[in-house]
Amino acid sequence: MTELRRLRTEEIETPALLLDLEALEHNIHVMAKFFAGRAAKLRPHFKSHKCPNISHLQLAAGAKGITCAKTGEAEVLANAGVTDILVANQIVDPDKIYRLACLARSGAKLTVVADRIDNVARLGEVARASGSTLHVLVEVNVGMNRCGVETAEQALELAKRIAASEGLVFEGIQAYEGHLVYDREVPTRLTEEVKRQGVRAMAAKVGAIKLQLEKHGLEVKEISGGGTGTYHLTGDKTIWTEIQAGSYVFMDNVYSRAGLPFENALTVLTTVIHKRPGIAVTDAGLKVCTTEQGPPTIKDHPKLKAAGQLSEEHGTILDEHDELGFLQKIQYVPSHCCTTVNLHDRLYCLRKGVLEALWPIAGRGKSR
Amino acid sequence: MTELRRLRTEEIETPALLLDLEALEHNIHVMAKFFAGRAAKLRPHFKSHKCPNISHLQLAAGAKGITCAKTGEAEVLANAGVTDILVANQIVDPDKIYRLACLARSGAKLTVVADRIDNVARLGEVARASGSTLHVLVEVNVGMNRCGVETAEQALELAKRIAASEGLVFEGIQAYEGHLVYDREVPTRLTEEVKRQGVRAMAAKVGAIKLQLEKHGLEVKEISGGGTGTYHLTGDKTIWTEIQAGSYVFMDNVYSRAGLPFENALTVLTTVIHKRPGIAVTDAGLKVCTTEQGPPTIKDHPKLKAAGQLSEEHGTILDEHDELGFLQKIQYVPSHCCTTVNLHDRLYCLRKGVLEALWPIAGRGKSR
Repeated sequence: MTELRRLRTEEIETPALLLDLEALEHNIHVMAKFFAGRAAKLRPHFKSHKCPNISHLQLAAGAKGITCAKTGEAEVLANAGVTDILVANQIVDPDKIYRLACLARSGAKLTVVADRIDNVARLGEVARASGSTLHVLVEVNVGMNRCGVETAEQALELAKRIAASEGLVFEGIQAYEGHLVYDREVPTRLTEEVKRQGVRAMAAKVGAIKLQLEKHGLEVKEISGGGTGTYHLTGDKTIWTEIQAGSYVFMDNVYSRAGLPFENALTVLTTVIHKRPGIAVTDAGLKVCTTEQGPPTIKDHPKLKAAGQLSEEHGTILDEHDELGFLQKIQYVPSHCCTTVNLHDRLYCLRKGVLEALWPIAGRGKSR
Repeated sequence: MTELRRLRTEEIETPALLLDLEALEHNIHVMAKFFAGRAAKLRPHFKSHKCPNISHLQLAAGAKGITCAKTGEAEVLANAGVTDILVANQIVDPDKIYRLACLARSGAKLTVVADRIDNVARLGEVARASGSTLHVLVEVNVGMNRCGVETAEQALELAKRIAASEGLVFEGIQAYEGHLVYDREVPTRLTEEVKRQGVRAMAAKVGAIKLQLEKHGLEVKEISGGGTGTYHLTGDKTIWTEIQAGSYVFMDNVYSRAGLPFENALTVLTTVIHKRPGIAVTDAGLKVCTTEQGPPTIKDHPKLKAAGQLSEEHGTILDEHDELGFLQKIQYVPSHCCTTVNLHDRLYCLRKGVLEALWPIAGRGKSR
């Protein structure tokens, strides 16, 4: 009988995106436990990991469905057997609306977000013509100032039109507090008190709009929003019914500064390919680790840091005390897990330093 | 007979990475013309486009071979029929060295770079054991301070060892002036005069090392380096024999500030999915356009600019005079073409606004 050769971390060819399964399971468990006793439910965001294996673990732990950003991600999720999918964005071009309608017809419950009457009209036309049902949330701007309507009147007009459209179902409101979930600054200005006030302010705005819609006989079944930095506020005794947190499964350097009960699970394994006094150069650069929220840190080497910006395929590390040696493998902790994942095709899943699984990042590059 | 339906730019689903073929051909032609009458030859870098179709156009225009950064890129190139490949980096781990030796055995001329004696020993062992030939350049640090040896003595030791190793061929020196090719600052500190002085300084250093090696009977056949920002200096009447420029085929916002005779050929097509007074929101964010060298600009709309950082899947554009309309398609000009290309699977190749070809970005994600 052939003995199975178990690959250890240091034997994995670099660069490689590593996932610590124990940390992942811890994070999924902690978040599931938070929502177990609460009215709001978790609808975790796919954009952070783009890996259906992880979505299925989240669903098994009690998540009510999955959130994603793009039509292409919804296709990956439906293909992987996920049956309740929110595309938490405006889907406006005819090709993409048709793709969504096709998905909806093949069995998945598909929800999209709208903030324009002409878009609602188009969603309705395509859904009716293709014999499918699309569920629609009206997006309300709660301070992120990206998309969404501003007033109860606008929300009411959209909700009425959705409710009156054959092929569309009015589901409720999306109110996402992207401006409160994280802050790149050190020290962060987003203290718990600032977040709490922010959530209170948006709850007042959304609550008033909800009342207004209900006065007109439009049931607001869902209020969807929330992120890893605010799930414990938006998800606790508010009018939000579902929370879209994503990054909690992996964490990253920016979220780690927020004092959340999650562990870092995602790293980029890299090899020291050049060593001289004070400097180590690795084989992992911008093409495997994003830096728009800052350079990566080095796991288990808190004193080391990147010397300036990563190159495309190299990292130059200040190694004052020559901790590192030629050919040594070290792990970057990314500052932004969501964009780093999007650079890779698979996750190397490890348990206690032994490779247990290779999971495809099936949503990688699905930005359409 | 079915009429071929020609897709126009505005009909392409977004986000999409667009390539203007006329600009590409212009750039390839201008660069080829520069090198046609010179001793130095062009060995264009694959990292900037990762698309073998473009490598073949460069070779057809006179390029002597192709430069790439990673073993995985060399595999893509060999697979596409490229027979003279320089991996312009240290390849140090045993698995990758073995992969290179396999490529070399299958017919391609493979050159790598080394700056350590133990790495040279390993390259020699693997090449000999696998019956293949690896060509090796000794890397000299000329001011970029990433990799490379510092002294003539170190270079000599390496060159001797390479020359004495069965399976290895000593090719010459890699001297890449990464510190002189571009500058993210506006206004740039890298004036022509600063670059010229920099090239002079490194030519003195490399020239002395070359002399030293030749004194010991080691022929320095190649001196390899140069980039888009310095090709006209390093490539003109110096000791450099080959120039590794890559970005000139596409250009980007950072290189465009350097006053080079190349045109922007690469853009990201995106749709306005939300419009309100003063603001347009697009469907293209960090997952389709990198920003480590600054935000993208908007082609044909010089007054528009990104409002702060791109989101993962959105761009928020300051549109003071409401130039843009809902569903309008616009084009980002990326600030860094090399990392933006690495986010996409294909290039939509257009001529006069009509889709002519889809080229796979076969090297996307090949960072190993």
